Amino acid sequence: MNFVEALGAAWKKNDSLLCVGLDPDPEKFPARLAKYPDAIFRFCAEIVDATADLVCAFKPQIAHFAAHRAETQLEDLIAYIHRNHPDIPVILDAKRGDIGSTAERYAAEAFLRYAADAVTLNPYLGGDSIRPYLAYPDKGLILLCRTSNPGGADLQLLDVGGMKLFEAVARLTAAEWNATGQCALVVGATYPAEIKRVREIVGDLPLLVPGVGAQGGDIRATVCAGRTSSGTGLIINSSRAILYADRENPAEGARRAACQTRSEINRYRSSGIRNQIS
Amino acid sequence: MNFVEALGAAWKKNDSLLCVGLDPDPEKFPARLAKYPDAIFRFCAEIVDATADLVCAFKPQIAHFAAHRAETQLEDLIAYIHRNHPDIPVILDAKRGDIGSTAERYAAEAFLRYAADAVTLNPYLGGDSIRPYLAYPDKGLILLCRTSNPGGADLQLLDVGGMKLFEAVARLTAAEWNATGQCALVVGATYPAEIKRVREIVGDLPLLVPGVGAQGGDIRATVCAGRTSSGTGLIINSSRAILYADRENPAEGARRAACQTRSEINRYRSSGIRNQIS
Repeated sequence: MNFVEALGAAWKKNDSLLCVGLDPDPEKFPARLAKYPDAIFRFCAEIVDATADLVCAFKPQIAHFAAHRAETQLEDLIAYIHRNHPDIPVILDAKRGDIGSTAERYAAEAFLRYAADAVTLNPYLGGDSIRPYLAYPDKGLILLCRTSNPGGADLQLLDVGGMKLFEAVARLTAAEWNATGQCALVVGATYPAEIKRVREIVGDLPLLVPGVGAQGGDIRATVCAGRTSSGTGLIINSSRAILYADRENPAEGARRAACQTRSEINRYRSSGIRNQIS
Repeated sequence: MNFVEALGAAWKKNDSLLCVGLDPDPEKFPARLAKYPDAIFRFCAEIVDATADLVCAFKPQIAHFAAHRAETQLEDLIAYIHRNHPDIPVILDAKRGDIGSTAERYAAEAFLRYAADAVTLNPYLGGDSIRPYLAYPDKGLILLCRTSNPGGADLQLLDVGGMKLFEAVARLTAAEWNATGQCALVVGATYPAEIKRVREIVGDLPLLVPGVGAQGGDIRATVCAGRTSSGTGLIINSSRAILYADRENPAEGARRAACQTRSEINRYRSSGIRNQIS
């Protein structure tokens, strides 16, 4: 089963478009974890176990591990998810972008070392920077298109001959880079009109949507703009609003917040069609 | 001394615009290193010692360490360079690009964990994705502008209203993002006309130029297109052509190749001015 198929199965099994972003911040962990050298792994594993039946994917963000010399804990965490929740795909959020032998090394890092099911990539270096990842036919490539931050406008909204740069990325992806069906795109929840535009360009391609929760993106607008005709097509990520909903009892808080967010998302999917397929 | 000042001092001290890229590939190491668990560190340290008086910078590429679980060897390598060759700045080639708290974590990774003097960044996410790195006033930010690969044309050559996207990145950098004097740009040696164009836009901003050596970029064209009026302004990177010039005796081969490359570069700098300032 390749990434897009695994994602489709998780959408259906858990009736969920919610992705929990694993951005561990040791300063926000409960005091009881302070004594463990693998506190980052333990914290994330608790969140994973508390939410695995409510999500369509987990998305660990690599910088939050690398800044703490916690690469081994990231390896262990992804292995833990695969072992205990084998139906939930893992997206390594790394936003890599490089060429040739270096891109090959990044692909090996994501798919061999960390055994992620998909990795986020930056499209600025173009099609040949993406090709080395396609050598892993079961894996997903999730390309930045329109990011959730205001500064994303600096380049992504530039007009490139009747369309914006992010639309050009969406077109290139749909028309060329997705020939093997391995691609998805990142479009921020903070710009629902642009989610709608990307959806028009790319058909049913999955969209990873960060920016709900702490960043303030609106769930209703996101779902209405981005859902496909089958009421899916979206990987709606929330990180901090889930992980730190209850600082003393993170697992409980995460489960509650994930339940609420999934319900709110599901309220705006085409429920008739959704129930029919699930 | 900040990064740009340290770079200027190294240009002068070693009369060199050459940067040695540290992209270790264990399959190309001499057999005698196979028995060491820290072979990657040992190989790179030999190259560093053999070339430190011939270069203006070292540029370790992080994927070549990360794919081998060798982050600790990368930390040790950068510490080794700082300790033994304190005049040579270290550029961590990571091409990071993210926002908010994640960008802060990447900045901590590059500047606190690895103690690099500069890091390469991807501009696709815009100005606010760069700001967290500026919180380290002594450090350099080297932004991708026009990369050396053919696929770079997919986005970077798109017309954005009378100029190409890479020119827009050069303008934004010179006009806004470089307010604190911490920025430099990446422009591939494979496109000398575009080096010239970037030089016209950015004044004396340092340019990191990959693509000579194994990628086939022409040194004469690169130097003539990119040098400043003082015959500097360039960080010309060569990786594989230096590291693997002699597979049995990498240090000897690297020294010979670095000597030749530095000489060839210097042939095309404005030698009168160069001798005057050095």
